Amino acid sequence: MQTQQGLSEIVPELVQVNDEIESILQKGVKNHLGSSQPFFIDKRGKKLRPALFLSSAKIHWQELTELIPLAASLELIHLATLVHDDVVDNATLRRNMPTVNATKGNKIAVLMGDYFFSKAFSLLTTVGNMEIINLLSRVVEEMSLGEIQQQIDAFNADLTEEEYLQRIRQKTAQFMASCCLAGCLTSEAPEDLKVTLYNYGLNLGMAFQIVDDVMDFKSDEFQTGKNNYSDLRNGVITLPLIYVLRTSPKSGLLRKSIQDKGPKTIEIERLLEEVEIDKGLAYALNVADQHIEKAGFFAGQVPSKPVMETFQAITHLIFNRAKQ
Amino acid sequence: MQTQQGLSEIVPELVQVNDEIESILQKGVKNHLGSSQPFFIDKRGKKLRPALFLSSAKIHWQELTELIPLAASLELIHLATLVHDDVVDNATLRRNMPTVNATKGNKIAVLMGDYFFSKAFSLLTTVGNMEIINLLSRVVEEMSLGEIQQQIDAFNADLTEEEYLQRIRQKTAQFMASCCLAGCLTSEAPEDLKVTLYNYGLNLGMAFQIVDDVMDFKSDEFQTGKNNYSDLRNGVITLPLIYVLRTSPKSGLLRKSIQDKGPKTIEIERLLEEVEIDKGLAYALNVADQHIEKAGFFAGQVPSKPVMETFQAITHLIFNRAKQ
Repeated sequence: MQTQQGLSEIVPELVQVNDEIESILQKGVKNHLGSSQPFFIDKRGKKLRPALFLSSAKIHWQELTELIPLAASLELIHLATLVHDDVVDNATLRRNMPTVNATKGNKIAVLMGDYFFSKAFSLLTTVGNMEIINLLSRVVEEMSLGEIQQQIDAFNADLTEEEYLQRIRQKTAQFMASCCLAGCLTSEAPEDLKVTLYNYGLNLGMAFQIVDDVMDFKSDEFQTGKNNYSDLRNGVITLPLIYVLRTSPKSGLLRKSIQDKGPKTIEIERLLEEVEIDKGLAYALNVADQHIEKAGFFAGQVPSKPVMETFQAITHLIFNRAKQ
Repeated sequence: MQTQQGLSEIVPELVQVNDEIESILQKGVKNHLGSSQPFFIDKRGKKLRPALFLSSAKIHWQELTELIPLAASLELIHLATLVHDDVVDNATLRRNMPTVNATKGNKIAVLMGDYFFSKAFSLLTTVGNMEIINLLSRVVEEMSLGEIQQQIDAFNADLTEEEYLQRIRQKTAQFMASCCLAGCLTSEAPEDLKVTLYNYGLNLGMAFQIVDDVMDFKSDEFQTGKNNYSDLRNGVITLPLIYVLRTSPKSGLLRKSIQDKGPKTIEIERLLEEVEIDKGLAYALNVADQHIEKAGFFAGQVPSKPVMETFQAITHLIFNRAKQ
């Protein structure tokens, strides 16, 4: 199968990334906290960001082993944002496991996120490429501003689609784009390849976040691995809601409920049925599809067949997730 | 007066650091949050870390203007840790003003701390000295591990003086030492000067933290500018307590109260009187004095009279704070 073939290209390196992160967790956190009580970090995610970075680097740089610390630092930045997001959202479930704040409390979760951020930057400096450090520190800065903006926009039923798209670019898509670009910066990649890969990552990231926001409306926590309706409960307005608030003739009750600082859990399903949220979900998935298509277009321009196949496989993963 | 003379040497640069931070706050936070409600960051601190860095750099590098972003990044790292510490400690007061968590809530405080950290690293890269970035990212990593250790040690009445000293070295003193060392790294400072300045900063930092921990026992919130007995209430065991737990014949009740997860506010003053906390405070200040003396010794070795005077002035500030 093409999809699996594509992904298998970088599996050995991703295993090394996993080992690096495990050793960091062991030294920095588990030795202190004890590992008796598992939490979500024990169940590894897709390592999408290291995969994007390593694949991009592979186009001109066959020896990936010395890039493992940098790849691990990208995953650590991602983990740091997840751990802090879960504090901010009072989330108890991620990847079908308890969150750090649920298991160890908010205090440890705040500090563990800080440790991941700082460890990521100290790993970044081991590679010693100033352009990459510069790129990533700016991306992390943008991500945190995007998260602050999301808090400020909480319970704002007038948020526009444009504002939403700007926010997810800032908090998700630019990071994925920069993982690809960072891969290029490890070698002497030509300018047009940098542009192609950045645009691939940007569109992949936009699609990824829109699909993630759609998943929040799925009522099956086991399937999503996270608390459902978490966004809505925390007043985070996403594309499906923006669509129905704009178009549904019955959106008044939902608008009022949001402005009253979030619907109660018991009301949510009824409210969403009332405004025909399915239309909003379909609309959002259509926007995601457009980004997936663009990502596929840019992936198709990659001048290395194995890397092209990896990128197409990753694009398919997002596409399949959208169809769940 | 020698003290004022010493400090006035770098006042113009510290004003520039203030302006840099104000512009960062304005762009990144205040424009989003509105500045109607002041919080502690509006009342600037001593900017001790930028002062250590700039003074150290001044020994061999007369033109400090281009080092302002780096100096600001040191203060931002410090601010980030304060904002997150206040979340972790549920503190409501700092520098006699409401904390960020008290004013804007825990969510914004977590994200604002993240923004300060990431902005600090992106400023660091503007100067482009890899050795400095490497040094500081490792220090921030150590600081976060020190903070995690402090949480793990919470309510541990058996914490030893050695463990306490190790923790404050990790969470406070190494950062100050590294601010001095970073100043050396901006120029071709000889190795022995690096060692001298590192040891100056390390001893200054140890004294600073011990005095800070003593201040937590002062009952006058206006004088300290922070909530009093915050450490004790959060189970953070510091040197005065370690001393009385070890030596006071009446320490049993205090020990039990700590093991029962912290004395109630109403009990604290009576409990502390019972164990004669004054002896613990005097003991801690004596340890601080030893570090102040060592800091003074290293400051005296600095081969630039104006910088030597600045360091001596800073040492005096800590010394005077201890005598309050």
